[in-house]
Amino acid sequence: MEEKIKQLRNTLAELADIGGAQAVLGWDQQTYMPPGGAEQRGQQAGTLGKLAHQIATSPELGRLLDELKTYAASLDPDLDDARLVKFAVRDYEQATRLPQEFVVEQAQVIAMSNQAWAEARARSDFSLFQPHLEKIVELVNRYISFFPKTDHPYDVLLDQFEPEMKTADVKKIFDAVRPQQVELIKAISEKPQVDDSFLHQAFDEKNQWDFGVEVITAFGYDWQRGRQDKAPHPFTGGPGINDVRITTRVDPNFFNPMIFGTMHEAGHAMYDQGLGQNLLRTNLANGASLAVHESQSRMWENLVGRSLPFWQHFYPRLQERFPQLNGVSLDTFYKGINIVHPSLIRVEADEATYNLHIMLRLELEMAIVEGKVAVKDLPETWNARMQEYLGVTPPDDARGVLQDIHWSWGLMGYFSTYALGNLVSVQLWEKINQDIPDLEEQIRSGKFDALLGWLREKIHVHGRKFMPQELVQKVTGSKIDPAPYVKYLKAKYGQIYGL
Amino acid sequence: MEEKIKQLRNTLAELADIGGAQAVLGWDQQTYMPPGGAEQRGQQAGTLGKLAHQIATSPELGRLLDELKTYAASLDPDLDDARLVKFAVRDYEQATRLPQEFVVEQAQVIAMSNQAWAEARARSDFSLFQPHLEKIVELVNRYISFFPKTDHPYDVLLDQFEPEMKTADVKKIFDAVRPQQVELIKAISEKPQVDDSFLHQAFDEKNQWDFGVEVITAFGYDWQRGRQDKAPHPFTGGPGINDVRITTRVDPNFFNPMIFGTMHEAGHAMYDQGLGQNLLRTNLANGASLAVHESQSRMWENLVGRSLPFWQHFYPRLQERFPQLNGVSLDTFYKGINIVHPSLIRVEADEATYNLHIMLRLELEMAIVEGKVAVKDLPETWNARMQEYLGVTPPDDARGVLQDIHWSWGLMGYFSTYALGNLVSVQLWEKINQDIPDLEEQIRSGKFDALLGWLREKIHVHGRKFMPQELVQKVTGSKIDPAPYVKYLKAKYGQIYGL
Repeated sequence: MEEKIKQLRNTLAELADIGGAQAVLGWDQQTYMPPGGAEQRGQQAGTLGKLAHQIATSPELGRLLDELKTYAASLDPDLDDARLVKFAVRDYEQATRLPQEFVVEQAQVIAMSNQAWAEARARSDFSLFQPHLEKIVELVNRYISFFPKTDHPYDVLLDQFEPEMKTADVKKIFDAVRPQQVELIKAISEKPQVDDSFLHQAFDEKNQWDFGVEVITAFGYDWQRGRQDKAPHPFTGGPGINDVRITTRVDPNFFNPMIFGTMHEAGHAMYDQGLGQNLLRTNLANGASLAVHESQSRMWENLVGRSLPFWQHFYPRLQERFPQLNGVSLDTFYKGINIVHPSLIRVEADEATYNLHIMLRLELEMAIVEGKVAVKDLPETWNARMQEYLGVTPPDDARGVLQDIHWSWGLMGYFSTYALGNLVSVQLWEKINQDIPDLEEQIRSGKFDALLGWLREKIHVHGRKFMPQELVQKVTGSKIDPAPYVKYLKAKYGQIYGL
Repeated sequence: MEEKIKQLRNTLAELADIGGAQAVLGWDQQTYMPPGGAEQRGQQAGTLGKLAHQIATSPELGRLLDELKTYAASLDPDLDDARLVKFAVRDYEQATRLPQEFVVEQAQVIAMSNQAWAEARARSDFSLFQPHLEKIVELVNRYISFFPKTDHPYDVLLDQFEPEMKTADVKKIFDAVRPQQVELIKAISEKPQVDDSFLHQAFDEKNQWDFGVEVITAFGYDWQRGRQDKAPHPFTGGPGINDVRITTRVDPNFFNPMIFGTMHEAGHAMYDQGLGQNLLRTNLANGASLAVHESQSRMWENLVGRSLPFWQHFYPRLQERFPQLNGVSLDTFYKGINIVHPSLIRVEADEATYNLHIMLRLELEMAIVEGKVAVKDLPETWNARMQEYLGVTPPDDARGVLQDIHWSWGLMGYFSTYALGNLVSVQLWEKINQDIPDLEEQIRSGKFDALLGWLREKIHVHGRKFMPQELVQKVTGSKIDPAPYVKYLKAKYGQIYGL
């Protein structure tokens, strides 16, 4: 069986290498590729995808996994080899469920749909996107039909991004959070607003960039195994582990996008840099799930980067770089970067309102899959729900139902992971504060090594060896639990807004 | 047969896509990849190379080509399809001659050898590289043994880079050039030296970069389908045709490396940008040979970029950027950038001495393949030959036999193409001046569109459809001919040095 495991590892290494090459192509496409190269890039990515799919669905791999299944079941289930086989079987079964014609059709529909979405959003005209979204929904329903029946058809979608997570569980979690979050926002809206005008002024771009570098260097982002570039839509990319690249954008007249974006991406990147070197070139060299990944980016962005102790250390340094902030007190600054105001756009939402944007999307996606809402009625339903949750109504579809790219990529079942990531971040944070009692003091001194060390050991190094709920349970003693998050929000904003 | 051609085109497209992806990985590795990513990058490149080799040597492709051979022979031989099949057959036959074990062993030896060379050069200690070079030579001899017997064993090596070129022809060409070039250098050395001290002073880096951009934009380098970055060893890369990237280096205290390097790489890049769009994703989307490629880079670097008419237009612009040149006359500047002084390092050699560096390497490579010189005696032989041709003796091996990376990559048969490129550039130049009688006047006005248009039509658009000698013959009416080159050197340096 040693020999068979070696064979499997070889195949997984090939797939990892192709995936790594695809990641470099993707990073390049969004940073440095000249515009003329776009069509060729699509072809290169398509061919690599096809070759990977051939390997990932080959009958030889299937036979190999059949032989290895029983052997793997006899091993300590936490051993790399046992997990490796388990996930290889899972991935193989998923990939082989989809007929080749479906994969090809899906790629074509998405390419067209993505273009149509961009145009529809630019013109703020949902009708341009509607027929494409209808095709996407049809594909999504066909996708679901290739899988065994689940409690809720949406389970199949969720499982792509949050393995083994059930729709019912997500709904239960969100149902617990939503009313309390709506209530909190209402209470905040009745209080005088904090001042954040000083964030909207000219900030030298190079100075901003350098400050971001200073901060994430202190966090422990490893520049030997990474780099930072500019991109219009920041992301974390590259082939992973020893080459994890982040991107950021710098707004010369608004301080927030650079610093919070940089900390967010560094959070993702430090997860990928922290994956065990033993996982290199395996199917386990990845985050446990999108929610767990988002818990890392949100932790560094919000729990560290929007906290008072963090700015107690960094605000004097920031003022040195930007003397225009000398008249703004630390307290005013802290409140300003934590301003709450219900807004139309998810990616610009503050901590207190963000999850509501997600819940709205989950509910609409579920209704679509259940056939309860037709695509043509989405704008109206969207706008009504925005009014109900956030008290605002989009003046046009660009700032409403058309704002996110995800559906045009055929991605349904994805959004929940953002909100789950917020919940997990605070749940981990409670546990970290138990394990590192002077964490706040450390942050106040600009020290992050104990924090990063904890995350490395408890989360990062395992990669994808554990299912997300399994990992959260293992680390915190319970599955994903919304209570810490709600408690955190109430305490933080209670203090800021004097509730 | 239409269907079979389509099948072949599909396979070639896949190979082109993988090659394009490899080109992006290679570019990234030499520009932006963080150091930690090197090992993973090697694995990614290895896996893509293996997949490409599997496709390129698959029995199905062999059968397809067998079926297409007769059909292709019945077509007009200049049709894309006819050439496509011809080159596919050539490439398939070459690839399938090499046993898989040989390819694997070669890759391993090269990886080790490349590392050893870097260390040997850094320490200037040939003995560190010697055992590796001995293995390389053994591999080269085995490589030759896989091919049918040729007039000279070196023919097999040459053919990799200069298809169908014979050692005897190259030798004959070089034998005609060498004595005249040696004599010219001797005559120059007896004349008073020109002044180039003004080139060795502080030149603002950004200003240098911007000037280079101004020049190659005027040449017609297409920024929509390319970009320029910095690299320690400048090269032209990227996936080709609609994405052709150049790199340059800027020395803050010496003007030459940036400007002549930039023009050189732009020359290569404009060739690749000019390949016919009909050749995209085929095996013809490449230069005719390395010599023809080098003829383009050398033409823009030397025949344009080191000419008086060019600087009649650009020198005032340069002086505006660098007022420290205001006291240097155009005549002095022109002579300074064309200074001749026999030197130790090939890549720093001037036009008058460059070819002699190449001839020395060709002679040594031939002697090695013929078994007339042992690897261990290379340093001594190298130094003696340098004294004979250029009147200088390397004080150490780093500036002698260890200076070039090529042998450590297993590349033998490559160097000649540099010198042949010089010859071809002038041969084309004569023809261009017949076809565009006011070319010099155009260059004096900073106009290059007729020149680039000529190159596009006569050379670039054909890609690899013609064998190099066939192409030169087709365009100039004769095969590669050294006479124009010798005439050009004598006229140019006769004027500069008053011979």
